[in-house]
Amino acid sequence: MVFIDGKPGLSVTSHDVARRAGVSQSTVSRALRNHRVSRATRERVLAAADELGYVPSEIGRSLVTQNTRTVGIVVTDLTSVFYPHIVAPLHDELAALGYRMVIFTEAVESDSPAHEETVKPLLERLLDRSIDGVVLTTSKLDGIVPRTLVERGLPFVFLTRHVDGVIADGAVVDNSLGASLAASEAVRLGHTRIGAIFGPSDTSTGRDRERGVRAALTAAGIELPVERTFHGPFSVEAGEIGIAKLLELSPAPTVVLCASDTVAIGAYNAALAAGRRIPEDISLVGFDDLPIACWEVFKLTTVHQPMEEMARAAAGLLVERIEGRREAADVRQVVFEPRLVVRRTLGHPPGQ
Amino acid sequence: MVFIDGKPGLSVTSHDVARRAGVSQSTVSRALRNHRVSRATRERVLAAADELGYVPSEIGRSLVTQNTRTVGIVVTDLTSVFYPHIVAPLHDELAALGYRMVIFTEAVESDSPAHEETVKPLLERLLDRSIDGVVLTTSKLDGIVPRTLVERGLPFVFLTRHVDGVIADGAVVDNSLGASLAASEAVRLGHTRIGAIFGPSDTSTGRDRERGVRAALTAAGIELPVERTFHGPFSVEAGEIGIAKLLELSPAPTVVLCASDTVAIGAYNAALAAGRRIPEDISLVGFDDLPIACWEVFKLTTVHQPMEEMARAAAGLLVERIEGRREAADVRQVVFEPRLVVRRTLGHPPGQ
Repeated sequence: MVFIDGKPGLSVTSHDVARRAGVSQSTVSRALRNHRVSRATRERVLAAADELGYVPSEIGRSLVTQNTRTVGIVVTDLTSVFYPHIVAPLHDELAALGYRMVIFTEAVESDSPAHEETVKPLLERLLDRSIDGVVLTTSKLDGIVPRTLVERGLPFVFLTRHVDGVIADGAVVDNSLGASLAASEAVRLGHTRIGAIFGPSDTSTGRDRERGVRAALTAAGIELPVERTFHGPFSVEAGEIGIAKLLELSPAPTVVLCASDTVAIGAYNAALAAGRRIPEDISLVGFDDLPIACWEVFKLTTVHQPMEEMARAAAGLLVERIEGRREAADVRQVVFEPRLVVRRTLGHPPGQ
Repeated sequence: MVFIDGKPGLSVTSHDVARRAGVSQSTVSRALRNHRVSRATRERVLAAADELGYVPSEIGRSLVTQNTRTVGIVVTDLTSVFYPHIVAPLHDELAALGYRMVIFTEAVESDSPAHEETVKPLLERLLDRSIDGVVLTTSKLDGIVPRTLVERGLPFVFLTRHVDGVIADGAVVDNSLGASLAASEAVRLGHTRIGAIFGPSDTSTGRDRERGVRAALTAAGIELPVERTFHGPFSVEAGEIGIAKLLELSPAPTVVLCASDTVAIGAYNAALAAGRRIPEDISLVGFDDLPIACWEVFKLTTVHQPMEEMARAAAGLLVERIEGRREAADVRQVVFEPRLVVRRTLGHPPGQ
C-alpha cells in the first residue's frame, strides 16, 4: 500500500548525479547536452543519471535555450464537436515535432465586436514567455489578438480562419468556394425557396461561407430574402434556434444551407422534434464533414474540409516560424480544397 | 500592413524596465513580487513596466518559486465525444485556480496489458518538471503510471477511474451501482434475453460497470450467457462491432446494456443501418449521459454521471495537493452518485 508523499520533491537533482558520477555539476549539465565533454565522462554521467532515475528539468533547459518547446492553441468551446478534430491532430503533430501543447480558451464567440479589455487576460497569458508560439482558431476580423502578437513578435499561425490585413502563416479551406458547391447542388436538385443559417459575420469563415452561398444563388437567379436567413455562432444551439425561426415561415424553405455541421446537426434535431422528415419535408446541408456527419442517424450531406491535414500543416508552419527556418517575409498561407460530400439530407424539394 | 518579425524577441526585459524606472534589475524583480520595496518605487516600476508593455517571464518566475503552475491531463483520444466533457471543465476550473493545462495522450486503450516500455515515454514527459501535477483519466488496473508517480512524488488525482491498491485522491462515480440501475430497469420492463457490450476488463470503469450489471441480473434470476456479451474499448467502433455480433444471435437479445454512451451510440447507428428500430425491435442503454445522449436523433436512456462536477472536484483536489494544503495521509476519494435517465431507447421487449 503506497501513500502520496505530502511534500513532493522529485528529489533527484543534477547535484546527486554529479556526486554519483564523481564529476562537477557543470560537467553533468554539459554531458546531458553532449557539449564539450569526453565520451567516457558522458557515459559515466548517463549511467549515474539512469541509476538514480534522474529526469532533466524542463525549467533548467528553458533557461539555457530561451525556449519552452510549448505551443498554445486558442479555442472557444472544447466541448463543441468541432474543436477536438483540430486539437487532436495538432497535438499529435506538435508532439512529433517535439513540442507540447497547452490550451487557452476565449469567451464564447458571438457577433458582438471583441474589445481590447476582453482579450487582455488572454494576451497576457500568451505573452508571459511560457510558450514559443500560438495557433489561432478563433480570430475575429477585427483581429486584436493577432495584431498584438505581430507587434510583440510572438510567432503564430492561423488555422481554419484568417484576419484581413494581417499577413501571417495560415492553413484554411477555400470557404467561399465550398459554400458555393452546397448552394449550387441545392439549385441543381430544383430548390428555389432556399434558407440559410449563416455563421458570425465578424469571422472570415462566417463571412466567406455566406459570400459563397450568395454568389451561387445570384448566379442562378435565385433570391435570398432576409427573412429566410439567420445569423448565429457555429453551434448546435444556433442551428436549433435558426431552424425554428425558418420553420415558422409560410411557406417554409425547402432547404436550409447551414454554416457548419454543428449548426446542421442542431437544425436536424430540432426539425425532427418538430415532426419534419429530412430530406422528405426539408433538406439540410452542413459544412466541415465532421466524423459524426456520416453517422447512420444523420448521413449529412456536407462540404468536406480536410481538418486533420489543415491542423498538421498549421503545426508545421508554426514550428518552422518558431525555429527561424524561414525568412520573416516568407509567409505561407496554405489554402485547402473543399469537396461536396453527398449523403442523405439533401433531396429534391417536396412534391418534385 | 504588418509582417511577422522573423526573429521574434518579445524583446522588453526586466533590464529595460529597470533602466526606464531608474532602478536596478533586482529592484524591478522585488517590485513585481511586491517584496521588500517602497510603495513609491513599486509604483514607479509598475508604471515603467506598463509603458514598455513588459510581461514578466514565466520561466523566471518558475525558477524562483520552483513550480510551473501547469497541470497535465492524460487522455487517450481527444476526438472521442467523451473526453472533451472532462477536459473542458478541468481546464476552466484549473484556470480559475491559476493553473494552465497541458494535454498528454496515451496510446489508445485496449484489453492488452500495459507494459512498462509503452508507458515510459509518457512517464518521462510527466516527470521532466514541466508540470506541478497530473490528472489521470486513462489508468488501467495494473497502474504502472500512478505507481511510478507515487514513487517519484509527483502529485496526481484520479478522475473517472481509479487503480486498486493505489491510495490517492480521486473523483469517480459509483460505477457498479450505476450499471445495476440500468440492468434492473431493463428487468422491470420485462426483458429476460439481455445482452451486454462491456468495457475493458483492465479498467476500474469497465470492470465495475460489468460487476453492477451481473449483480443485478443475478439478483433477478436472469442468466447472462457468454455469447450474449462482448468486451471492447469505450468507443463508437466497439458499439458497432459488438451490436453486429449480438444481432447475429438467434434469437437476438431484446436489450443491450452498453458500457458507455459512446458504445451505445455506435450500437444505435449500426442497429439502425441493419434495419432495426430502437426501441421497438431492440432496446439500448448507455452510461455517462453525454450532451449528445439527449439529441432528438438518439434520446438515449442512460446512467448520468456528473462529469463537470467530477472534473472540477478533481482539479480542486489536485491543486490542494500541489500546494501542500492537506496532510500527506489525508487522501480524499470523492464518489459521486449515479442516476438513471429515462429517455426513449429502453422500451418493453418486442411483443409485450
